[in-house]
Amino acid sequence: MTRILDAQDVDDLAVGAWVLGTGGGGSPYLNHLNMQRIAADGMQFELIDPQELDDQARVAVVSTMGAPLVMQERLQDPRDVARAVEVMAEHTGSTFDAVMATEIGGSNAFQPLMASAHLEIPIVDADAMGRAYPEAQMTSFAIGGLQPWPLALVDPRGVEAIVTQVPTWKWMERASRALTIETGSMAATCKAPRSGAEVKRWGVANSMSFAIHLGAEVRKARVGHDDPVAAICSAADGQVLFTGKIVDVDRHTTGGFLRGVAKISGLDQYSGSEVELDFQNEWLVARLENQVIATVPHLICLLDATSGEAIGTETARYGQRVALVGISAPPLFLSSTALEYVGPRAMGYNLDPVDPCP
Amino acid sequence: MTRILDAQDVDDLAVGAWVLGTGGGGSPYLNHLNMQRIAADGMQFELIDPQELDDQARVAVVSTMGAPLVMQERLQDPRDVARAVEVMAEHTGSTFDAVMATEIGGSNAFQPLMASAHLEIPIVDADAMGRAYPEAQMTSFAIGGLQPWPLALVDPRGVEAIVTQVPTWKWMERASRALTIETGSMAATCKAPRSGAEVKRWGVANSMSFAIHLGAEVRKARVGHDDPVAAICSAADGQVLFTGKIVDVDRHTTGGFLRGVAKISGLDQYSGSEVELDFQNEWLVARLENQVIATVPHLICLLDATSGEAIGTETARYGQRVALVGISAPPLFLSSTALEYVGPRAMGYNLDPVDPCP
Repeated sequence: MTRILDAQDVDDLAVGAWVLGTGGGGSPYLNHLNMQRIAADGMQFELIDPQELDDQARVAVVSTMGAPLVMQERLQDPRDVARAVEVMAEHTGSTFDAVMATEIGGSNAFQPLMASAHLEIPIVDADAMGRAYPEAQMTSFAIGGLQPWPLALVDPRGVEAIVTQVPTWKWMERASRALTIETGSMAATCKAPRSGAEVKRWGVANSMSFAIHLGAEVRKARVGHDDPVAAICSAADGQVLFTGKIVDVDRHTTGGFLRGVAKISGLDQYSGSEVELDFQNEWLVARLENQVIATVPHLICLLDATSGEAIGTETARYGQRVALVGISAPPLFLSSTALEYVGPRAMGYNLDPVDPCP
Repeated sequence: MTRILDAQDVDDLAVGAWVLGTGGGGSPYLNHLNMQRIAADGMQFELIDPQELDDQARVAVVSTMGAPLVMQERLQDPRDVARAVEVMAEHTGSTFDAVMATEIGGSNAFQPLMASAHLEIPIVDADAMGRAYPEAQMTSFAIGGLQPWPLALVDPRGVEAIVTQVPTWKWMERASRALTIETGSMAATCKAPRSGAEVKRWGVANSMSFAIHLGAEVRKARVGHDDPVAAICSAADGQVLFTGKIVDVDRHTTGGFLRGVAKISGLDQYSGSEVELDFQNEWLVARLENQVIATVPHLICLLDATSGEAIGTETARYGQRVALVGISAPPLFLSSTALEYVGPRAMGYNLDPVDPCP
């Protein structure tokens, strides 16, 4: 089934994708404004179900790599991500039938819309993370053992490069991250092209429409004076793990990532206790009084306690009243192979995964 | 005229190119041994005069990028540079008629031999520096305003990338250096392909045969118990600027380069005075008691005082008895456009160029 996204859907996507960003993927704010305007001007974004893809369909997989804090300072031109798709088409010698997100989390959920607006190809209702992860190899396509190369990278200064071969997915991350850092810790990328068959087998299906649904539930709760945090938990099978006030954020942009720790002092029933959240672009590990209560690949979402609006690792600041929500990762990301890519050890923690909603 | 390089020429090239390396380009020792063996096995390296190139001939321009100290530790496989040429051929859709060096200095003089041995194409008797320079944009091709892209980069782990577009030559350096650093501060590269017409107009002609000649003069002086340093000065129009003993080397591999300062305490007529040599892969600036006596783009060559063997920025060490020789740069590298690429200011010094042999 093909669905046409309207202006309301675009607004809802911004809210839902930001929740699924688990702190990362970049604040959708700027790209949302951009696509909101394009939608208001009558642009129709065509969203197609992955099951409707021909096995041989050629799908471009897009994201902007980099450190979220930089993305707040450098307004992204949608033509950059469209150009990344074009560079890939030139390199591979054939055009694309559709475009999809690498990660549905945060600003990166808008990348296929931005590419679609300029290339006039439909958007596949899927991504390769079901959330946001910090590194390029942390995808369902890597877990599926698909070919990691080529990757096209575009910087608006006019730097364009293609990583044409790598020995491992991690080396694709390393090579493309090195270029991303050199261009200012932000670059538009078109990842290895995927066939329709590969997207159907290994993509996270319907994640775009789920993000829109999640945003719509938040909107309805806000309008109906219900609790948006409860609406998110209900729609995404999540649980509130903690509520409190952010009392400290230690944050630095390093190695092309935004890294650090945020501390939340408990309020109400959690009064007197403290949660620490480690992050590398995304929230990776949550500790309550030194006990690990949630880790990747499970989703750790920090939300404004009143509005349900997600709080990113780059926007978290002292004094915010927050609800910490945990959501179990889909089974695809919990196999032993998957954990080599997206488990706590893959992020440098000597921890087994902890499901916040066991 | 086509010349076949024999084993003696290969040996002489190692000596002469190391002198022209002005401290950089990497010690030719390991690659020389490799090509010596290949020459002994009967491989014939065909050296063609650039004037004999068809205007439309396609010339691959090769070098290994990186920090010389790393190149001493990681033995280079000639197939890597041959592979870089192949990656470029695949990307551009046509093969090459010949191969040439980006820089005639040091180990990089051997790169076209290494590519030639595997690709079986002739070597053009030319390069784009007439010496060695630390950065990729410091070439006669950049000075000539030729197109900087594409560049193919190969690391033996199986990382292959193409920088397909850049806004400036400096951005080509930045993008390729970022990838080089990520692969361990060493990578085989094939620079932007050049036409025969471009090589004839902007290449440094006959630099390969000049390096071989220089090495032969050193060899003859050694055999004849003459002074090899004097033989170099005579063959290359150079002057001895200082003689002494290395008393200090401050050296660090950083940002993909080998940087630091070497100090030479004077002997004989220079007794009681000291020379400092700043380096970034190559010797850039020589100071005698804080007075600048030579800078890039002029050639600053540090030689073993007895054997005339060049001393590299990575091989200089305490106690070596040295002669410091200056050689004036060719006029091509002294225009105002040229100095923007290869003058002292291009290397971060607030200095006008100082010719050691005015």
